[in-house]
Amino acid sequence: MARFEKVVICGVGLIGGSFALALKAAGLVGEVVGLGRRSETLEDALHLGIIDRIGADWSDALNDADMVFLGMPVGQMEAVLLSMVPYLSDHTLITDGGSTKTDVVASARAALGARIGQFVPGHPIAGAERSGPSAAQPELFQGRRVVLTPLAENSPACVDRVRVAWEACGAQVCNLTPERHDRTFAAVSHLPHLLAYALVHEIADRENADQLFSFAASGFRDFTRIASSHPEMWRDICLANRPALLAELDAYLTQLLRIRVLLASSDGPGLEILFDTARKARDAWFGGQGVTSEE
Amino acid sequence: MARFEKVVICGVGLIGGSFALALKAAGLVGEVVGLGRRSETLEDALHLGIIDRIGADWSDALNDADMVFLGMPVGQMEAVLLSMVPYLSDHTLITDGGSTKTDVVASARAALGARIGQFVPGHPIAGAERSGPSAAQPELFQGRRVVLTPLAENSPACVDRVRVAWEACGAQVCNLTPERHDRTFAAVSHLPHLLAYALVHEIADRENADQLFSFAASGFRDFTRIASSHPEMWRDICLANRPALLAELDAYLTQLLRIRVLLASSDGPGLEILFDTARKARDAWFGGQGVTSEE
Repeated sequence: MARFEKVVICGVGLIGGSFALALKAAGLVGEVVGLGRRSETLEDALHLGIIDRIGADWSDALNDADMVFLGMPVGQMEAVLLSMVPYLSDHTLITDGGSTKTDVVASARAALGARIGQFVPGHPIAGAERSGPSAAQPELFQGRRVVLTPLAENSPACVDRVRVAWEACGAQVCNLTPERHDRTFAAVSHLPHLLAYALVHEIADRENADQLFSFAASGFRDFTRIASSHPEMWRDICLANRPALLAELDAYLTQLLRIRVLLASSDGPGLEILFDTARKARDAWFGGQGVTSEE
Repeated sequence: MARFEKVVICGVGLIGGSFALALKAAGLVGEVVGLGRRSETLEDALHLGIIDRIGADWSDALNDADMVFLGMPVGQMEAVLLSMVPYLSDHTLITDGGSTKTDVVASARAALGARIGQFVPGHPIAGAERSGPSAAQPELFQGRRVVLTPLAENSPACVDRVRVAWEACGAQVCNLTPERHDRTFAAVSHLPHLLAYALVHEIADRENADQLFSFAASGFRDFTRIASSHPEMWRDICLANRPALLAELDAYLTQLLRIRVLLASSDGPGLEILFDTARKARDAWFGGQGVTSEE
């Protein structure tokens, strides 16, 4: 397995930090150089052994770098890529951990121009309850999926190199187009977040919100867990994936109106078939984990 | 504390069985008699020490009974009450564990007639992953809420007696009107179930459902946990609480359309305020439990 003699992590948070630690644990990396907006975060990452040194600037960091990992929010990627491109040499790979891909690819094309082939977009599906370098752990990606969305301009060798790095971290890597990635995550991640925020907001807005919340039990608690996610991050994801998310929202609204018709017409068999189909589909995928019938 | 010399549990499942065990543990009950549709369930309950004997029939079971607990699905309550009413003496209290209250009260009025004052409707907010008598446990109601929806015809003494029984089981008892109960649970329980079923069904219906589910992570898993609930039970709850649930569904649809406008117009600040309000409200109630930022 070809080592990465020098890896640059730009944005050493949970994901970037765990990627560095996992590559180190796999013995796949020589030196890890950290870059980022907050020097305090970089100092933390240095003391935690996540990075071996803090880069002085892009010129220093990119000199002889084999791979750059972008771990910042997707809204910042274009500016970061623009600032690094003057110092980028031909053999340096770039990859990222952004939650949306169509917008990141557009940003990368705008910033990298003819060097776009050096950028292999990615999205590791992993997380933890905490963020920042102190939450980073080498096992974060074990058994988790990483989606790569290779571009026509990427050489197979470049894509393979990024795949090998993630596989060394214990991840299962698969390829999707950026568009397919964004539609998929609009359905199984972005829309559920929107729905959970909507429910909590709808209740929080009422005069008797406190009373209502006081009767909410574990079903409500789990349903709305993702409504405790970071508002800024989710604002950015929603805006970045707007067309796909609007399409998902409309499909869901149609489904809700269909259910409303069943309910308004007291169509018991219709409701039961719908619930049963949903339960069977979910149980087939998740094994009916942790269902309580408390309500 | 006045003991219940004889308690009849009709429907000895998780809730009815746990109620019996908790009353026994509190030393508040003399004999517990079980009744139900399935003799196998009753035999199990007998062997597990949940009930002391199986009632021969209503006449036998109700003779000198202090309290009857109805533990069957709400759709069956009217028929059960009709079959027991000829054998009911003046001093026997009746209470239930049904998930909806307006419909149960209507059924009880229809079945009990002038004896309606003997029926104190209730709803213990508790559950477990398993059902049936083998899942029953005396601690099930410790620290959980029980809602009573007393009727104008109930004497304060009757209501107090039911309250005392639940408090002896470790529950926190509060009173709501049946209508307020049903509106409250439409908002914090019934609607979320409908929304979770709707999302899973919407995805399960697609050609690429398998691929979509394969990328669903813990956010989706928890959001849809309640879509693995029992379809028949939830069909009955939806139908029993139809008016309140339709009102909640419409309020939610309005909220979703409001979010759709924010998204379609790329109103980042508007989305962020909405997400932030929701997160703060949820965290205030649930302390931000178990939030992962994996997406």
